[in-house]
Amino acid sequence: MIERFGHGGDLETAQAAFGVDRSAIIDYSANINPLGPPPHVLTRVQQELKDVVHYPDPDHRRLRAMLAEALQVDASMICIGNGAAECMALALLAMAPKRVGVIYPCFSEYAELSRKFGADVIGIYGHAEQAFRAGVDEIIGLMRKVDLLFLGQPNNPTGVQYNLEELEKLAAIAAESDTMLIVDEAFIDFIAPDKQATLLPVVERYSHVILIRSMTKFYAIPGLRLGYAVAGPTLIQRLKSKQVTWSVNRLALAAGEACMVDCESYEEVTREQTVMEREYMIERLEREFGCQTWPSLANFILVRLPKPWTAEWLQTMLGRRGILIRNCAMYEGLSEADIRLAVKDRERSVILFEQLADVWQEGV
Amino acid sequence: MIERFGHGGDLETAQAAFGVDRSAIIDYSANINPLGPPPHVLTRVQQELKDVVHYPDPDHRRLRAMLAEALQVDASMICIGNGAAECMALALLAMAPKRVGVIYPCFSEYAELSRKFGADVIGIYGHAEQAFRAGVDEIIGLMRKVDLLFLGQPNNPTGVQYNLEELEKLAAIAAESDTMLIVDEAFIDFIAPDKQATLLPVVERYSHVILIRSMTKFYAIPGLRLGYAVAGPTLIQRLKSKQVTWSVNRLALAAGEACMVDCESYEEVTREQTVMEREYMIERLEREFGCQTWPSLANFILVRLPKPWTAEWLQTMLGRRGILIRNCAMYEGLSEADIRLAVKDRERSVILFEQLADVWQEGV
Repeated sequence: MIERFGHGGDLETAQAAFGVDRSAIIDYSANINPLGPPPHVLTRVQQELKDVVHYPDPDHRRLRAMLAEALQVDASMICIGNGAAECMALALLAMAPKRVGVIYPCFSEYAELSRKFGADVIGIYGHAEQAFRAGVDEIIGLMRKVDLLFLGQPNNPTGVQYNLEELEKLAAIAAESDTMLIVDEAFIDFIAPDKQATLLPVVERYSHVILIRSMTKFYAIPGLRLGYAVAGPTLIQRLKSKQVTWSVNRLALAAGEACMVDCESYEEVTREQTVMEREYMIERLEREFGCQTWPSLANFILVRLPKPWTAEWLQTMLGRRGILIRNCAMYEGLSEADIRLAVKDRERSVILFEQLADVWQEGV
Repeated sequence: MIERFGHGGDLETAQAAFGVDRSAIIDYSANINPLGPPPHVLTRVQQELKDVVHYPDPDHRRLRAMLAEALQVDASMICIGNGAAECMALALLAMAPKRVGVIYPCFSEYAELSRKFGADVIGIYGHAEQAFRAGVDEIIGLMRKVDLLFLGQPNNPTGVQYNLEELEKLAAIAAESDTMLIVDEAFIDFIAPDKQATLLPVVERYSHVILIRSMTKFYAIPGLRLGYAVAGPTLIQRLKSKQVTWSVNRLALAAGEACMVDCESYEEVTREQTVMEREYMIERLEREFGCQTWPSLANFILVRLPKPWTAEWLQTMLGRRGILIRNCAMYEGLSEADIRLAVKDRERSVILFEQLADVWQEGV
C-alpha cells in the first residue's frame, strides 16, 4: 500500500516501494487532466518567475475579479485558497463544528481535516446499487445530527452527482437545521456545463452553503496548489478571517489568471476526451477483465476487481511495471477489491491494458 | 497608509494609491535580499515547472533531509511550512494557547494570528534605550502569564537580538512555566553565523522551544512561500498534525532544495553587503537627515524621522516618486515618526537618498 499519506499521486513513496524511477511512472492514482497544463499557462508562470522576489497579493485581487466575471458572482463571494484543501480547512476553522457528517465512500480529507481541527465525524454509507449515493432523506437525517456536512459533487471516488432538486432540498434543510453544507466541486469542471448539477447560480440565496472548487485537477497544476470557495459574502468573510497571509503563492495566482483566458478549446477537448476515454476504459475493464464499474461523470472510475484479485495485489504488480493505481481498500464503505483509475489518454491507457493483461495472465 | 493588509511589499495597493506602475517601484518596505534569488535556484524552479502536473511530496522528504544535514539536526526535528507564517499558524493551532505574549514593537502577525485562532494577546513594551528590547525579568514575568510567547530573534522592525544567555534563561523558564516559546528567526540568516544568537544547537533539550525560520527573505523568493520550524520530534509531530496536506507547493520545495546547494558565496556576499549598505544608510540618515536609528543586525533599519516629518507623509511623498517605505505608525510601541527601511544595494540606495533629499527640500 503506497497511500502512506492517504492519497494517490505520491510518486516518492511509489519509487521507494516499487524500485521504479518516478519520472517513468504512469500515474493512474491521481485524477489530473492528462493533457497537462495549457501551454500558455506554463508560459505565464515562467514569466512570473522574475517576480517571485515580491510577495503574492495578499488579497488575490486580479484572480478574484477574473473568477467573479467567469462565474457571474460578485468578487466578495470568492475566497482563493492554497488548493481546495485549504478552503476546506478554512471552512472547518471558521465554523468550528463539533460534529461533521460525511457520506462514505468519499474523499478521505473530509474526515481527516475534521478530526485534525477537533470535530467528531459521523458517517452514513451510500448504497452500491445507487453508485454509493445515499438517499436524500438519509442525508437530511444526518444533517440534523451534525454542524457541517461535506458532500462531493461529483463524489470522489465514485464520480456521481446528486441532482439539482436534491441539492436544493439539502441547501434548504441546511439553513433550517443550522448545518453548514460544504459542496466539494473539485471535479465538476470535468463535466459538460449543461450536465453539471451545481448551486452556483443561486448560492447567494443560501445562508448555509459553501461551494469549493479546485483549479489544479482540471488545469493539471496540482504542484502549484490553487482552489477557491464560493458562497455569500458573509460566509466568505468568515473563511478569510482564518486564512494565513500570503498562503496562496504568486505563481499559483499567475497560473490561475492565465487559466481564465483563452482556455475554451482546452476545456472542450478535456471534457470530450474525458467522456471518450472513460467509456473506452469502462468497456475494456468490464468486457476483457470482468470488472464491475459505476457510472462516473468525472475523470476517474471506481472499479471492483473480480475474485480473487485484490486492490493491494494489483497495485503491487502494476507498480513494479511503472503504473500507479489507487487502492481503495482504505475507503470506508469500499472493499479490498476496489481500485480507482484516473481517466487518461489513449496512448497511456493502451499501455495500462497491456500491462493489466500481462498481470491477469500471470494469475494471482 | 498602504499597509492595508498589515504588511509592507503590497505593490498592488501601492500602485493604486500612488498611481505608479508596480514594475517600476523600488520597494524599501519589504525586507527581501536585494541580490534577488540565486540564478541556479531560478533555473531549478524552471526545470521543476514540467512537474507541476504532479502533487508536491506531502512529506517534504528531500528538503527535510537536506536541511537536517545543514542544520545538524535530525529530519524528524523539522517541519516545512508554506512560509514562516504557516509555521506560526501551526504552532498556534497545535498548542491552542488561551493567552499569547508579545513584546512590542514586533511583527504584527504574532498578535494577528493569535487572535485569528482564538487567543488573547498580552503585550509588554520594549524600551527605546535598549533598542526596544524588554528586560529578561520582564519577559519572564510575561511568560508566567501566558501559554505561548513569540520572540523575534532578530526582532522585526528593530533588527536586534537577545543574547544566548538570555535565550537559555527564557527557554528554561518556558519549560518551568509550561509556556511555549516561539523564537522567530525569520531574519537570522542575514547575520554572520558567528554573531547569530540561536538555540538551534541545543533546541532538542528544550521541551517548550520552537524555532521558526524563513527561506524566502534571505533567498529572495517570497512569492514562492517557504519556511520551516525546528524543535524536538514530539513538538514537530504536533505541528505536522495540524498541517493541511500539500500546503507547501512543489516549486517552493524545489527552490528550497536548490538553496541548500552551491549558495556559500551568495550567502557570504549577502551578509557582507547587508553590513556595508546598512552602515551606509544609517550614516546618511543620521548625518544628512537628522534621523534617529537603532543598531540593527538585520537587513532593515528602524528609523525615527526628525520633527515635523511623519511616516505617513514621507510614505506618500516617496510613494508618488516610486519608492515604497514601511510606515511603522501602526506598530504598537512606535510613533507616527517611525519608518522601517529595507537594506538594499548601493544603486537603489543612491536613488532613495536623492529622492529623500528632494522631499526634504520641498519641506512639509
